[in-house]
Amino acid sequence: MPELRQDPTTKQWVIIATERAKRPEDYSRGSERKEHPEYSEDCPFCPGNESITPPEEFAYRMKGTKPNTKGWWVRVVPNKFAALVPNGHLGRKRENGFFRSMYGVGKHEVVIEYPVHNATVGTMEIGQIEEIALVYRDRFNQLSQDPRFQFVTIFRNHGRLAGTSLIHPHSQIIATPIVPLHIRHRMAEAVRYYDDNGECVFCRMLAEELKAQKRVVLETETFVAFEPYASSVPFETWIMPKKHAATYGNISIDDAKNFAQVLSRIMKKMYTDLDDPDYNYMIHTAPFKDAGENWYHWFVQIVPRLTMIAGFELGSRVFINTTPPEEAAEFLKQGV
Amino acid sequence: MPELRQDPTTKQWVIIATERAKRPEDYSRGSERKEHPEYSEDCPFCPGNESITPPEEFAYRMKGTKPNTKGWWVRVVPNKFAALVPNGHLGRKRENGFFRSMYGVGKHEVVIEYPVHNATVGTMEIGQIEEIALVYRDRFNQLSQDPRFQFVTIFRNHGRLAGTSLIHPHSQIIATPIVPLHIRHRMAEAVRYYDDNGECVFCRMLAEELKAQKRVVLETETFVAFEPYASSVPFETWIMPKKHAATYGNISIDDAKNFAQVLSRIMKKMYTDLDDPDYNYMIHTAPFKDAGENWYHWFVQIVPRLTMIAGFELGSRVFINTTPPEEAAEFLKQGV
Repeated sequence: MPELRQDPTTKQWVIIATERAKRPEDYSRGSERKEHPEYSEDCPFCPGNESITPPEEFAYRMKGTKPNTKGWWVRVVPNKFAALVPNGHLGRKRENGFFRSMYGVGKHEVVIEYPVHNATVGTMEIGQIEEIALVYRDRFNQLSQDPRFQFVTIFRNHGRLAGTSLIHPHSQIIATPIVPLHIRHRMAEAVRYYDDNGECVFCRMLAEELKAQKRVVLETETFVAFEPYASSVPFETWIMPKKHAATYGNISIDDAKNFAQVLSRIMKKMYTDLDDPDYNYMIHTAPFKDAGENWYHWFVQIVPRLTMIAGFELGSRVFINTTPPEEAAEFLKQGV
Repeated sequence: MPELRQDPTTKQWVIIATERAKRPEDYSRGSERKEHPEYSEDCPFCPGNESITPPEEFAYRMKGTKPNTKGWWVRVVPNKFAALVPNGHLGRKRENGFFRSMYGVGKHEVVIEYPVHNATVGTMEIGQIEEIALVYRDRFNQLSQDPRFQFVTIFRNHGRLAGTSLIHPHSQIIATPIVPLHIRHRMAEAVRYYDDNGECVFCRMLAEELKAQKRVVLETETFVAFEPYASSVPFETWIMPKKHAATYGNISIDDAKNFAQVLSRIMKKMYTDLDDPDYNYMIHTAPFKDAGENWYHWFVQIVPRLTMIAGFELGSRVFINTTPPEEAAEFLKQGV
């Protein structure tokens, strides 16, 4: 019998659709990544092509090498096709009565994660992923200094179904002058839980998951990876710090490395045993001004794109998930 | 310069990304539909294969023909892989403390829209689409009689990127024992607008669109099709009745036919000039118990799936739209 489950952090329902249940093997797909070369002449992100991108904002690079030349191992550049631009008037436009708009002020960056063209987080060495996690931290904190920005989304699109046709490994960062409504709803629910119970709903969720041990994929001293109770898609995975922290920016260097290790193990497992699925991951974090709050908790949400978002999901925002998270966890925790 | 625009009915922001703007022609794709036959032996929805589906709930069929045989022109059957099932205990499950769940009670139906295998709404004659609109109405009102259900979503998935691999023309209907949170948020905003202004926000939106004439695609005596000001994707189109009505169920037979005519013209235009894009459409309507409310207004949202939903959209629910709705309207209104 199918089940309706509620995400305790948002109150969104999902349908766990056992009648159409799929086994993990049913989602496997042949990876095309291996067919790509390690270096591509035409790729704007490959070493030697630094002049094709806008000038770099930031890079980890070898001593003595100059910006916008070879010698980097992580490189951050403005997105050439930026969704938001860093210059312009902040605030509401005035010309419309009923309709409200703002100038598209913000910052849209690309993190070029690695020089090797056909690598991905699921195949890189752990040391490199640690560097990427540190770059996320640096950029987060840099962008949080800008008084025009209220919020930052750090995300990775992997594969065409996840919204990118670029092979070269990269993440993106978008700083916005507004807090997205979805985040405000998340925060309102978290505040309500805190009011009722005097604790962070995410801390409680983590404690409940560790007690139940039905959906935990991986636990280390500092992080837990688990399939959320109300997973919206097959193999949705959250990575959450055990220690309460509202924002990614405050992470210690050691914990960024600890996080990278867990991320690496999960992504390697998915790469190998789900055959390099298309996926997105997003760092969910509090708005800059709520960095110290007791009621919000940062986490990473990994969303494999093995199924399509269809009309029911678009219309109701209720997802139909064909793989119970308990089964997904059972599968992912083997050899992770 | 890009622009942030707010949907007046939800307060969701979208980014209209002019820096990466695409022209309508850039989205064209060759339709594969024409390669499929008019009849497919293996298709469970083709005439003659009625016994493969669960027994029909309802059909428009020729006099003298029996249920579950040939002779229908629209046929409604339970979904064989139903996300929710019509039998079982209603209400919350009790075994969980922190986590909340309900039995997956509901109704999941398929509307087989037409006997011809390779037809679609964009190619059918108008008379057939009128029949489909009347079936939606019949099913809506039938399901609203069931005291277990609070809400119904009527939707169409067209093409693989929109979540279906079935070619045979069909829509789906899901009745749920809950009102989705997303709908509650929509309703809360609509109530707030009504409180502030004493009128329906959708009625006001329609008046503003008709005044501005920048995003209107098609206007008839009873309906308006337009690109919403804060369109989340290229060519997102809404069809809205001019006369205030909170729910689709109360539509008159004449108005269902009027709606079908507008739907037909829009879908034919998209089929022809956007090369049969994958798309979803959804009928947004009030929960059953709010059928008579002054502050909510039913409409159909058509979402072409020409771009992918990526990490930023999943994380923030803020969409990046690469085609301003004014341009989309200019394109769609030619010869519609």
